[in-house]
Amino acid sequence: MITVDAQRLKKDLIDLGSIGRTPSGGLSRTSFSAEDLKAREWFTDRCTEAGLKVETDGIGNLIVSSPRADALTDPSLPAVWSGSHIDTVPDGGAFDGALGSIAALECLRRIHETGAALNRPVRCVVYADEEGNYASLLGSRALTRGFSRAELETLTGRDGDRFADTFTAAGGDLDAAAAAKLPDGIVDSSVELHIEQGPVLEERGIDIGVVTGIVALGSGTVTFHGRADHAGTTPMNARQDAGVAAGAFLASLPEVAARAGERAVVTAGMVTFIPGGANVVPEAARVTLDFREPTADGVAVLEALLIAQAHEIAAAHGLECTVDFAPTVPPAPLDEGVQAIIADAASARGLSHMPIPSGAGHDSQNIATIAPTGMIFVPSVGGRSHCPQENTRWDDVARGAQVLMDTILALANR
Amino acid sequence: MITVDAQRLKKDLIDLGSIGRTPSGGLSRTSFSAEDLKAREWFTDRCTEAGLKVETDGIGNLIVSSPRADALTDPSLPAVWSGSHIDTVPDGGAFDGALGSIAALECLRRIHETGAALNRPVRCVVYADEEGNYASLLGSRALTRGFSRAELETLTGRDGDRFADTFTAAGGDLDAAAAAKLPDGIVDSSVELHIEQGPVLEERGIDIGVVTGIVALGSGTVTFHGRADHAGTTPMNARQDAGVAAGAFLASLPEVAARAGERAVVTAGMVTFIPGGANVVPEAARVTLDFREPTADGVAVLEALLIAQAHEIAAAHGLECTVDFAPTVPPAPLDEGVQAIIADAASARGLSHMPIPSGAGHDSQNIATIAPTGMIFVPSVGGRSHCPQENTRWDDVARGAQVLMDTILALANR
Repeated sequence: MITVDAQRLKKDLIDLGSIGRTPSGGLSRTSFSAEDLKAREWFTDRCTEAGLKVETDGIGNLIVSSPRADALTDPSLPAVWSGSHIDTVPDGGAFDGALGSIAALECLRRIHETGAALNRPVRCVVYADEEGNYASLLGSRALTRGFSRAELETLTGRDGDRFADTFTAAGGDLDAAAAAKLPDGIVDSSVELHIEQGPVLEERGIDIGVVTGIVALGSGTVTFHGRADHAGTTPMNARQDAGVAAGAFLASLPEVAARAGERAVVTAGMVTFIPGGANVVPEAARVTLDFREPTADGVAVLEALLIAQAHEIAAAHGLECTVDFAPTVPPAPLDEGVQAIIADAASARGLSHMPIPSGAGHDSQNIATIAPTGMIFVPSVGGRSHCPQENTRWDDVARGAQVLMDTILALANR
Repeated sequence: MITVDAQRLKKDLIDLGSIGRTPSGGLSRTSFSAEDLKAREWFTDRCTEAGLKVETDGIGNLIVSSPRADALTDPSLPAVWSGSHIDTVPDGGAFDGALGSIAALECLRRIHETGAALNRPVRCVVYADEEGNYASLLGSRALTRGFSRAELETLTGRDGDRFADTFTAAGGDLDAAAAAKLPDGIVDSSVELHIEQGPVLEERGIDIGVVTGIVALGSGTVTFHGRADHAGTTPMNARQDAGVAAGAFLASLPEVAARAGERAVVTAGMVTFIPGGANVVPEAARVTLDFREPTADGVAVLEALLIAQAHEIAAAHGLECTVDFAPTVPPAPLDEGVQAIIADAASARGLSHMPIPSGAGHDSQNIATIAPTGMIFVPSVGGRSHCPQENTRWDDVARGAQVLMDTILALANR
């Protein structure tokens, strides 16, 4: 049993949380931005001052090892990986990714400091661009599926910049990035600590969430097609107003989600009216949809309900509608053996725990394709995330990190 | 009685309709753009080749006179004005403004050609920036209310350009623009021919609309305020989704307009979700509103209904809402004497006519503040306007121009 240093963990989280601070109190560390590079430098400094060794792979993932611990094992053996990310969404919070990264660093530091003899090596990992500025879960996808150089050259960021330009300016090499895919036999197993980013654990008063998997995800757009008309000269009964139909669709989304089940969620995060003039009846209205359900069947039902609802509302308004959905991302179940280890670790520390699906995507879903993988959730205050108000209580931070430590040790000594 | 040359009128409309043509088949002649300047040059050439004299005032209005007709009257007498505009909205049509401008030119050409002796002079006018790229009804407002140089310096266009820069580059002079206000005694009366831009005349099979006035106009924004949350991790029942409330508001607008009366119209032409990420529950949703009713009382009722509806829907969704409306633009009644002259002219030509309010703004509402003013509407095919499909049948064009001719003569000989 090794105990994590909760005070050091807290100090590191606060220090990292000062990098990329926005006027609103949030954090903006878009991947490969100056702020992200500063955070990566800060992280590397924490590793080297602790005597750990940092390697940066071709896509920019940081892979940290303990020379002292590796001397006690066969470092060519498949390793236990643990980590998360330190990039953020624009104006995001200080715990999403940062917690799992610094907690993994703290676990590896404690292994290094205690000189624990383990059956296999342990690695702390910081994945690049988890927030998908350039591509969904870029760093872990490069490790597990790989990107061709041609694919990398097509990627553009939220701000319209080319990945190739920003990555190269940040010191990256596209050929190395295209060669980042891991050979077999590198990862034995993996575990990631993360904030829940939702309200369930807090509402139920549970200390630890044992993540069962990443929910299935559908996404795309619904566009209603009407007719542009002059706002002043066209009587209401002579209009084909795409915006009114889009409004009826937006208003119905909670009810559609409820029909698909209590775990289904539907979000319309962006709406565009075309042509978009204050005095023009919109001829088209495009609604982006993000919809999720824990099971493949459930997300398929939800998708069908949304398509039917869009067509029904369009017809009721005398309009056409087009639906353009991306292929559904199937649910990514996490390893049951690792789930059991996490649950046992929580129980052994006297902590309450529950199985919980993850509504958000995580690098662990990619790592799960190459090795048994688990995730540990700790409560998010008010369920808030991806915003300046994102917060997790310090005792929950410490509990999560300790369960992570215990899980890593259990995996490393299996 | 002077008869207009319908073939020449048609040819001119077709020729002018080739300037600023877009790939979609529409016209883009934003005021003071290269295309607008080309159209003004084309118009000036038509005037000078007809022997007419063109003056450009300080703000860029073209004022056309017949030296021959003026020699038969006292040109210092207040004149009968007729005209419209040749700038367009982006991707607009070939009749809005162009019809009234070329028909007024045709009337003045015929007066010039026939050497008619009139009691007072006649002027053909092309108003600058009617479509309000820089300010609502810029040219006629400069003539009637005037702009200070300081005001002009604050104006910016749809594309973000400064009026001062674009206007100066087009050969304008800001000091002259600030001095464009007409002295008293210039305009005796005014009449403008325009397409209806709505479906009423066509649906009822009426040849000529005698415009009773410009309807009252309200505008502004309604913003719903909720809470941003992660699209994947926040259960539906834990959300405060501003977009869902905005949807319910949008969907209810036709019903709210109906409660205010059958002539009320409400348009939400633009919607913005904040922060506007595909996987973020919108924390705010801003809806722009344009609402009109022929009477001051009616628009006040409509405004009150919209405000009440916004607050009711916000409350039903557990959200806040803020309403930011500009002061209502009062209705602009047109002169009853001029209306009678137009109706008589139509009747004398065997044309059916009806009184009709204008749902759109026109330069005539500004000119009405300094002289008795009327407007003549002709049917719009399908009621379409401000779009490439904008169309008026050639026999309706000819009928409208003839009624304009007869009205100008009646006003000039009063």
